[in-house]
Amino acid sequence: MLLKSELNKLKTKLNSNGILSKSEECCCYAEDALNTRDKKRNPDLVVFVETVEDIQFILKYAYEHEIPVIARGAGTNMVGACTCPNGGIVLNFTKMNKILNIEPANMTVTVQSGVVLGELKQETDNFGLFFPPDPSNYKVSTIGGAIAQSSGGALSFKYGTIKDYVLSLKVVTAKGEIMTIGSGTIKDATGYHLAQLMVGSEGTLAVIAEATLKLIPKPETRRSLLAYFENIEDVVFAVDNLVTSNIFPSAIDFMDKNSIITVENFSKCGLRTEYSGVLFVELDGQISSMNEQLDKTKEILENSNVKNIRVAKDEAESELLWQARRVSYAATTALAPDVISDDIIVPRKNLGRMVNKCHEIAEKYNLKMCLIGHVGDGNLHPQIALNLDDDIEFKNCMDAKAEMYKFAIQLGGTLSGEHGIGIEKKEYMANSVDITAVEYMKAIKKIFDTKNILNPGKIF
Amino acid sequence: MLLKSELNKLKTKLNSNGILSKSEECCCYAEDALNTRDKKRNPDLVVFVETVEDIQFILKYAYEHEIPVIARGAGTNMVGACTCPNGGIVLNFTKMNKILNIEPANMTVTVQSGVVLGELKQETDNFGLFFPPDPSNYKVSTIGGAIAQSSGGALSFKYGTIKDYVLSLKVVTAKGEIMTIGSGTIKDATGYHLAQLMVGSEGTLAVIAEATLKLIPKPETRRSLLAYFENIEDVVFAVDNLVTSNIFPSAIDFMDKNSIITVENFSKCGLRTEYSGVLFVELDGQISSMNEQLDKTKEILENSNVKNIRVAKDEAESELLWQARRVSYAATTALAPDVISDDIIVPRKNLGRMVNKCHEIAEKYNLKMCLIGHVGDGNLHPQIALNLDDDIEFKNCMDAKAEMYKFAIQLGGTLSGEHGIGIEKKEYMANSVDITAVEYMKAIKKIFDTKNILNPGKIF
Repeated sequence: MLLKSELNKLKTKLNSNGILSKSEECCCYAEDALNTRDKKRNPDLVVFVETVEDIQFILKYAYEHEIPVIARGAGTNMVGACTCPNGGIVLNFTKMNKILNIEPANMTVTVQSGVVLGELKQETDNFGLFFPPDPSNYKVSTIGGAIAQSSGGALSFKYGTIKDYVLSLKVVTAKGEIMTIGSGTIKDATGYHLAQLMVGSEGTLAVIAEATLKLIPKPETRRSLLAYFENIEDVVFAVDNLVTSNIFPSAIDFMDKNSIITVENFSKCGLRTEYSGVLFVELDGQISSMNEQLDKTKEILENSNVKNIRVAKDEAESELLWQARRVSYAATTALAPDVISDDIIVPRKNLGRMVNKCHEIAEKYNLKMCLIGHVGDGNLHPQIALNLDDDIEFKNCMDAKAEMYKFAIQLGGTLSGEHGIGIEKKEYMANSVDITAVEYMKAIKKIFDTKNILNPGKIF
Repeated sequence: MLLKSELNKLKTKLNSNGILSKSEECCCYAEDALNTRDKKRNPDLVVFVETVEDIQFILKYAYEHEIPVIARGAGTNMVGACTCPNGGIVLNFTKMNKILNIEPANMTVTVQSGVVLGELKQETDNFGLFFPPDPSNYKVSTIGGAIAQSSGGALSFKYGTIKDYVLSLKVVTAKGEIMTIGSGTIKDATGYHLAQLMVGSEGTLAVIAEATLKLIPKPETRRSLLAYFENIEDVVFAVDNLVTSNIFPSAIDFMDKNSIITVENFSKCGLRTEYSGVLFVELDGQISSMNEQLDKTKEILENSNVKNIRVAKDEAESELLWQARRVSYAATTALAPDVISDDIIVPRKNLGRMVNKCHEIAEKYNLKMCLIGHVGDGNLHPQIALNLDDDIEFKNCMDAKAEMYKFAIQLGGTLSGEHGIGIEKKEYMANSVDITAVEYMKAIKKIFDTKNILNPGKIF
């Protein structure tokens, strides 16, 4: 806990307009997008950092006084990675939101870590370049948070996750060292890839201040289609057939019947609610290839018992279709006071078994579940609508989650494809990750953060 | 040093046919593809490991007795990463060369780390799948070595390096623990990416026994072309224009005039020796897009003062063109008794300055240099032909290298894009990599290898 005298010291060093210390201010930073029943603790202080030196100053102070430091982007993560179980100082990156340098000839961009993904995507687009990572919340989430949580998105199927775009990072260590890791060149074989180690480390190893990211040329065009099926077996059959063709869609996403109905009720976007499942398929590439790609895709879908295909007529309509997919979380919130959005991933060949198991579990526990996911990657997001204050619903939901994780792990899958562990899943880590590997992770944590001040209580 | 009695103990535990201990046998493992004047020390023992348990057995033994262990694939690395400065046990992976499981529906493959890249590429090709990493030596080099050295290749421009394809690894630690890191799913956000930490770690953190790798759909077709230029400025201008177009070539490689002449003299493949430089451009994708891609590429090249374009008429001719590029190291060996092949990388925008500097340095030090490279990535391979026994030539070569590194670093580049550090470049690490980052790397090394038995003397 910070003493008042200490606080005043900090205020004299930092821009005091950017420091929140009153309880009614700090309480806004007690929560992130994780829905739980647990009462969250407020941070003691929220600092709107403006420079890497601000971060350094706070970390040196925090290190000396052994105060937890929690870096926070938009707080949209769903695993409690920005919560403050031990209080401490929240670093708010709202003011570190500058695109520092875009280099079209290098196809790289350097940004402060508070830059919103959507703004970065827009800016790179202006240069005819493309930054693929597209978590559903990309219009608000920040690059620092996306790196910390190892974010993916629908386009991961073709373009990989954010880890594939991180070239170098400027970070501040627990001791307050400013360190550049990675070289910013497109390839780098000079020692250990520390920048990759930071991806998914949820702010537990260092605070990310700036990132240099790889960009790629923007595909000339893209086109999406919806493919409806009468049963899950056909959906999975279609995914298998799409994946093993030499068409390489940029995304293969999925919504089950509950999701279709829920989204359609919410947004009246013209989804066909009579079917059991829909695939969102996006194709991209040269304009000259688009008809061939579409024809082949339709042929594959027809050979997979598709019941209805809707092809977007242009990029604008493609974007509309994807909005239907991205709105699914918001739509689910209309079903009950709270929504818990989960994230499991299995080897793609086990996708059908995992989808069916999720439906079985929802029925067994009498849960309202909308199942969506990046099925091209074997990645499912069961979204459970419930009233957290209802003891029975809550227990059912927790039991259902545990059962889903267990089954995913049995199938060779794991706890999280793109949301991370945070506080939500740390109790399950030992079931999912090799126990020896966890010990080495903890040892690495200890090197970077001897006093355990960086986002303590997360992951482990 | 191993005592005879100890050796006999090992032989009773392992397949004794697969153990070499005589000096005349072990001397074959004293060197790898690094050319230096330094006399290399033999390993004390070479073991042809057959199972992960063999590796475990040796590491437990080596840990107890503090004996260095050097994992060796094909020994094709050019930085001395497989040399044995302190003697010790070489693990030879020739017998761990099995493709264990290819899963087309998952687009993944699990291999033992002695699998040759070329065989893996062929096998995945049989399933209509594609494993892009293509270091020039891929017909002999192994997957374990490629991961250890963070290999790239010409296709890195579009498809990234091997790090982008490593999903999970089975490794054996210095203490002899068998550990699986990463989950084998396409995405994974469960804790630190230890598998990524192993990429480029040159056998200093653990011994890689098996790897699960990501595959992608095989592009429907590919087509290559050669573009000749009268001066380097135009080459660089063409690269800039190609990179910033929305054509996304799979590769943009380069040979300078010396390389063209040297390769043509060596292989009579029809290269045009009158020009100052040639770009190898490969396009891939849907057949229907190929004419458009070719037309646009030719237009870009024509607007960049290209003097001559040769388009391969089909995939077979494309492959022939690439053989000309890949043979350049062998061709250079015809110029002098020895060749030192280097590896530097700069931000692409500084490519022209780096190419010119390499030529300047070659002239200054009177060196026969063939300059090639993956210029789409800003990655250059100066290949210097010399007689290592000639004191003056040798000193000139070493001075030239130091000068090239210094200039690359000045330009925001780094020591190595895809060869690694090994023993060759470790003295330069502190100039290139953030000194604080090096300290954290060393601390990580210490966690994994408290007794410093894993490939000691490399990287640091």
